Amino acid sequence: MGHVTETARKARRRSRGGDQAARSGAPGQNPQLEVPFITRGIPTYDLLGDDSLAQIEATADRILAEIGIEFRDDPETVRLFRTAGGHVNDLTADSWNIKFEPGMIRDILKTAPARFTQHARNPARSVEIGGEAVVFAPSYGSPFVMDLDKGRRYGTIEDFRNFIKLGQSSPWLHHSGGTICEPTDIAVNKRHLDMVYSHIRYSDRAFLGSITAPERAEDSIEMCRILFGADFVDQNCVIMGNFNTTSPLVLDGVTTQGIRAYARAGQGSIHLPFLLGGAVSPLTMAGSVAQCLAESMVSCALTQLVRPGAPAVLASFLSSMSLRSGSPTFGTPEPALGSLVMGQLARRLNMPLRCAGNFSTSKLPDAQAMQQSMMSMMSAVQCGANYVLHSAGFLDGLLSMSYEKFIMDTDLCGALHAYLKGIEVNEDTLAFDALAEKGPGEHLFSTAHTMRHYKTAYWDSAMDDNQPWETWDEQGGIDAATRANSRWKEQLNAYQTPPLDPGKDEALQEFMAKKKASMPDAWY
Amino acid sequence: MGHVTETARKARRRSRGGDQAARSGAPGQNPQLEVPFITRGIPTYDLLGDDSLAQIEATADRILAEIGIEFRDDPETVRLFRTAGGHVNDLTADSWNIKFEPGMIRDILKTAPARFTQHARNPARSVEIGGEAVVFAPSYGSPFVMDLDKGRRYGTIEDFRNFIKLGQSSPWLHHSGGTICEPTDIAVNKRHLDMVYSHIRYSDRAFLGSITAPERAEDSIEMCRILFGADFVDQNCVIMGNFNTTSPLVLDGVTTQGIRAYARAGQGSIHLPFLLGGAVSPLTMAGSVAQCLAESMVSCALTQLVRPGAPAVLASFLSSMSLRSGSPTFGTPEPALGSLVMGQLARRLNMPLRCAGNFSTSKLPDAQAMQQSMMSMMSAVQCGANYVLHSAGFLDGLLSMSYEKFIMDTDLCGALHAYLKGIEVNEDTLAFDALAEKGPGEHLFSTAHTMRHYKTAYWDSAMDDNQPWETWDEQGGIDAATRANSRWKEQLNAYQTPPLDPGKDEALQEFMAKKKASMPDAWY
Repeated sequence: MGHVTETARKARRRSRGGDQAARSGAPGQNPQLEVPFITRGIPTYDLLGDDSLAQIEATADRILAEIGIEFRDDPETVRLFRTAGGHVNDLTADSWNIKFEPGMIRDILKTAPARFTQHARNPARSVEIGGEAVVFAPSYGSPFVMDLDKGRRYGTIEDFRNFIKLGQSSPWLHHSGGTICEPTDIAVNKRHLDMVYSHIRYSDRAFLGSITAPERAEDSIEMCRILFGADFVDQNCVIMGNFNTTSPLVLDGVTTQGIRAYARAGQGSIHLPFLLGGAVSPLTMAGSVAQCLAESMVSCALTQLVRPGAPAVLASFLSSMSLRSGSPTFGTPEPALGSLVMGQLARRLNMPLRCAGNFSTSKLPDAQAMQQSMMSMMSAVQCGANYVLHSAGFLDGLLSMSYEKFIMDTDLCGALHAYLKGIEVNEDTLAFDALAEKGPGEHLFSTAHTMRHYKTAYWDSAMDDNQPWETWDEQGGIDAATRANSRWKEQLNAYQTPPLDPGKDEALQEFMAKKKASMPDAWY
Repeated sequence: MGHVTETARKARRRSRGGDQAARSGAPGQNPQLEVPFITRGIPTYDLLGDDSLAQIEATADRILAEIGIEFRDDPETVRLFRTAGGHVNDLTADSWNIKFEPGMIRDILKTAPARFTQHARNPARSVEIGGEAVVFAPSYGSPFVMDLDKGRRYGTIEDFRNFIKLGQSSPWLHHSGGTICEPTDIAVNKRHLDMVYSHIRYSDRAFLGSITAPERAEDSIEMCRILFGADFVDQNCVIMGNFNTTSPLVLDGVTTQGIRAYARAGQGSIHLPFLLGGAVSPLTMAGSVAQCLAESMVSCALTQLVRPGAPAVLASFLSSMSLRSGSPTFGTPEPALGSLVMGQLARRLNMPLRCAGNFSTSKLPDAQAMQQSMMSMMSAVQCGANYVLHSAGFLDGLLSMSYEKFIMDTDLCGALHAYLKGIEVNEDTLAFDALAEKGPGEHLFSTAHTMRHYKTAYWDSAMDDNQPWETWDEQGGIDAATRANSRWKEQLNAYQTPPLDPGKDEALQEFMAKKKASMPDAWY
C-alpha cells in the first residue's frame, strides 16, 4: 500500500472518534464568507510583461487609426465621434467608417470611473464594480433551458423566474443578471417588461436591463425610476445594459442607440466584443485581444461623449473554435490565457472589466462541463475581472441554461469566495503553537488552534460528496448531476420572495400593463 | 434572443460553408504541442509577498529548532544528522528527536541540484526536473481501481499494466509514474519486482521505484543497473523514490533507509509530507505550508549527507478535511492557494518541486471529479511545480484509480500543454493584417492569417464534445464519462509495446525469478 493512502486512512480512522459531535450542521455553511460582493484578497495573475502589453495596445490603436470602426443606422453617434475628432468616411446613406487618431479614444475614456456602485433595491446588496471588487452574476442570453428531467426545450418566463429565485437563494452570487434565459413564450417586443419586473420582484439584488431596442432600454430605466425615484436614478447607477459589438469592428445602430440611452440616464453599460477566434477575430490570441481592446474601448468611449462620468465597463468574451468542424469551443486554454491579458489591459486603462465565466460546450452537467468551466472561470477570478457574467448555468455553448449546472456553478462560486480571500499569514495562522502543543507524531484534532479554527478554516461545499466510498455507495452511489437535480428543486421549494413595497409593485405592474396595451405582440 | 447567442449562431452557420474540407482529421491532434517534458512559457502565479514568505520560512526554521523532528529505527540517519550539527535527544532505544539550528538545513541543501535529468530507457523521453521544466506522471498508491463496467475492486497486476499502457499511449504524460495502483494479487514482498519490470517493459519513459522497504528500494535500483549498466546508473539519475514523511514531524526508519538507498546510488528522491490539515498539520494554510517546508527540507537534507549532489525534490501534498465528518477533502480552494505558496518557497530554496495533481474525492468521473481536479491541477501548473505526480486517474480521495478519469485527466494534461505555452506576441500573432485584409464586418475564415494558423492555433481535445446539440443528440447524447469508457478500451486495443533489448529483458526476468524464489510470499 502506498504511504499516502495509509496516512489518509489513519487520519480518517482517527477523525471518526474525536470531536465529531461538535462538528455538525448542514453542508455548505460558510457564513463567514458571505459578502454583498467579493473584495479580492489575492494578487492578479499577470501573464505578459509591459513590452508585450504595449505592443497589444499599439495594435489596438493602429486598428482604430488605420482600419477604423464601422457604424450603422445611428447618425447621432457618428456626429458625437466626429465632433470629438474622429475621421468619418461615409460608406452608404446609413453606414460610416470612423478612424481615430492613436490615443484619442484613451483620452475620451479618462472621464470614465475606475470604480462605481450599482445600487440594489436592498441597499445591503448594492455592488461595487471596479478595483478589487468582484461580482458574480448568472449566465445570460440562452434561448433554451435544460434539466435532467425534461431535457432541452425553449425557455419560458417560468424558467426565467425560477433562475432568478435560484440565484436569489444562493449566497454565492451577488447580482441577479439580465436575460438569464429567453422567455420565449412572451412576445419579443414585450418580454423585456416581464424580465425587468421579475428581477425586481423575485430578487433584491442589482440586475441588467434590456438592450435589444432603444425603447426597451428606455422602458428598463423607466421601471427603475418607479422603483428608486427619478432623482436617485439620475445621480446613481441602478441598472446596466450589456452591449455587444458586431465583430469584427462594427457597432450597429440598435447597440449605439441603447448605449446612448443608458449613458444619458447616467446608468452603467458593459461593452462586449464576443470574439470567436478564426471567425470574427484572428485565430491568434494576441490579435484577438488587441481587437477586443479596440472594439470595447470605442464602445465605452461613446458613453463618455454622451455623459462624461457615466459608468462603463470594458469587457471581453474570448472563445476558440473547433478547426475541424467550425463549432465554437469554450473553456479551452487559449481564451483563458487571453482573459488573463485582458485583466492586465483593463488595469492599465484604469477601467472595470467584465471577463470570462463558467463557459462550456457540454450538453450535460458532466465532467466536461466542469472541466471547461473551471478553465474559464479560474481565468476570470485570476485576471482581476470585476463583473463575471455567466457565473452560473452556462452549458451547450451558451445556447442552454441548465438547472443542474446552475447549482454546481453557484457552489463553485462559493469555493471561489474562499479562493479570492487568499492566505492570511500571521502568528495565529502560522500555528507554531499548534504543532508545539503535542509535538511530533501526535495528531492535531483537539489542539486549541484546531478548536479555534475548525468552523471557518475550509470551504464547505454543499454539493461535493466527500464521504468514504462505502457510505456513498450505501446511500445509492449518486453522481454530482443527480445531486444537483435534487438540490435545485429543494432550493426552489424553500425560496422566499423578498419584501417589495406594495405601492411600487402596483406602479410597476401598471406601467407594464400600459406598455403592453400600447402595442400589438411582435415576435422579432 | 441575446446578441451573444446570435453572433455564435451566425458564426457557426458561416463556418459550415467555407473551408471545412481543408480541416479534417482525428480529434486530439496537436502534434506541435508534443514534447518529452514541458518547458514553462508562462510566469508562475506568485501569491504572497516576500515578507509573508520570510515569515513562513522563519516558522519552518523555528519548528526545526524548537520542536525538532522525530526519527525512528534508523541509527545511521541519526548519526549523519548528529555529525552535521543536529542536536540529538534520545527518546527511546530506537527513537530520537533532533533539533536543527536555524539555517543549518538550508546550508546542507546547498549541494542539492536545482535541476537534473532523469534518464528514460528511450533517451528521447528523458525528462528534466527543476527550473522551467514540467513533468506530468500518473496517480500513485491507490489500492482500488474502478471503471464504469465493473465498478470498484482491488487493483491487480493486470490493472497496473493497463495503466502503464494507457500512460504510454498518451502524448500528454511524460513519466510512467510508480505504484499507479497496488497490484494486490501479488505478494507484498514481491510486487515491487513486477511493478518495476512492468514500467520497464510496457513503457519507455522514466519511472519511480519501490520505497516500501530498503531491500525493495535496492532491488528497484539493481533492475535499473541491468537496464542501463551499473556505471551509467552511478553517474546518472535513472530512477526516483517517492518518500512520505510521517506527519507531523516524524521520519520513520523504513523511509530514511529508503532515502539513503536511493541517495547512495546517486538516484533521485521526492520528499513528501502528506498534510491533511486539522489532522496532521494545522488547519490554517500558512501553518501547514510552514510545516511542509520544514519536513520536506529535512527529508531532502538527508540525501545530501549521504551523497552531496544527489537529486532531491521538495514536495507538498496539501489537503483539507470536512470539518463535519473528518473525511479528507481534495480539490478545495485552500490547498490550491497553499500549493501556489509552496512554489514560491521552492524557488527561494532553488530546488525542484513536486506539487498537487488532479485530486478529487468524487467516486465517479463526474462533474465533481473534474471541478475538484481543476482546482488542484491549475495550482500545480501555476505554482511552478516541476513534477506533477497524480496527473491522471485520481478519484475517491486517492483510494481508487479510475480508468475513465485517467482518460479525462490525460486529455486535460494536453490542454495544459497549450496553457503552459502561453501567448506569443509578435507581428504575426498580433494579426493586424488579418483584420485589415477584409475590414469591418467581414469574417476571417479565409484570410491568409487564418489559413496559416488554423492547424495549430487551438488545443484540440480528443474527449470534449463541441458539436451542436442536435448532432450530439442524434449521436446518442453521450456524456463525458461514457466517452472516456470507450476511449480507454480503444487505447488499450491500439497499444503497442515499445521495443526492449531481448538480452536485457531476459536478464531482468532472471533477476526477478531469483529474487522471488529466494523468499516465501509475505502479505505485509
